[in-house]
Amino acid sequence: METLQTTVNGFKSQDIMDTVKAIQSNPKIAKFEFRARNKWITGGHNRSTIQDFYGACVEDETRKEPFVFDNSEPPILLGNNEGANPVEFILHALAGCMTTTMMLHAAANGISVESVSSSLEGDLDVQGFLGLDDSIRNGYQNIKVSFKIEGNLTDEERNQLISFTRKSPVFDIVTNKVPIEVSVK
Amino acid sequence: METLQTTVNGFKSQDIMDTVKAIQSNPKIAKFEFRARNKWITGGHNRSTIQDFYGACVEDETRKEPFVFDNSEPPILLGNNEGANPVEFILHALAGCMTTTMMLHAAANGISVESVSSSLEGDLDVQGFLGLDDSIRNGYQNIKVSFKIEGNLTDEERNQLISFTRKSPVFDIVTNKVPIEVSVK
Repeated sequence: METLQTTVNGFKSQDIMDTVKAIQSNPKIAKFEFRARNKWITGGHNRSTIQDFYGACVEDETRKEPFVFDNSEPPILLGNNEGANPVEFILHALAGCMTTTMMLHAAANGISVESVSSSLEGDLDVQGFLGLDDSIRNGYQNIKVSFKIEGNLTDEERNQLISFTRKSPVFDIVTNKVPIEVSVK
Repeated sequence: METLQTTVNGFKSQDIMDTVKAIQSNPKIAKFEFRARNKWITGGHNRSTIQDFYGACVEDETRKEPFVFDNSEPPILLGNNEGANPVEFILHALAGCMTTTMMLHAAANGISVESVSSSLEGDLDVQGFLGLDDSIRNGYQNIKVSFKIEGNLTDEERNQLISFTRKSPVFDIVTNKVPIEVSVK
């Protein structure tokens, strides 16, 4: 079965099938707990570390060093650009998740893509966040995502690729409601 | 007016007041458009650049270099840990935004805080994303945020600090619905 040994969009078809079969035989391995730790530095500047997570019924130990990311703000928002700001990181996460989801589902469906890029825009009115106008929401009012996809693709495949992006976990998190429980020590 | 020259939690009180006054006199300056550009590399690996944005009625030019962030996946999710994954970036954005929002509103209310750290956990079952069980959502089922706050604070101030975090733009984005418009070239 030659097709099982192929790589599509950088994903090994066998790996995708093995993952699906493993989950079907034991759905518990599909449960993940992702984590981040954050420390305030000063003003609008803070730093997260991301390393460990739980998944496939074990604590992951593949990351020898943590990923470290700084949130900050530009001067107009009272910061010094020590990092991108949190709502910009939302666009980064959304772009990445929609892209990965598109490419994984494309691979699973045998659709080979040459290149994908995207540009995102999010509208935010800080009157909401600052409590100056209760009719304005605090977060993004809307987000526009524009993809550029290249490859030898039919119109139907192109439409499929875009429909795959709607399966993205971050697309779900942003377009739907996720409950957040806040506690303090 | 000595209080106007103070710095609370790293924010200059005068800067906060100036910002609020400027927006009250011209609400258009509160409108921001944040942006990200992303390029697929291979498999679950892609890269975002974040630099320019529109706000306060002008294109911001304070960032001389773009911020660059890689999304990737760990081996169990068919990647090679070239970066944190998109849903982990959501936790980073959420932690940072809730912290900055807390500290800015604390400063505006004259509440001085010594230190803040947080740890976040998000539960996600990949059966949703993989289309193996339609009853399971694709994104986080829930997120827990635990803050540790230190300082000479009354119980009332501590409760206020936690209530401030709910004004966070990313808290709004995650707990409520944001419309996303997807297009393709």
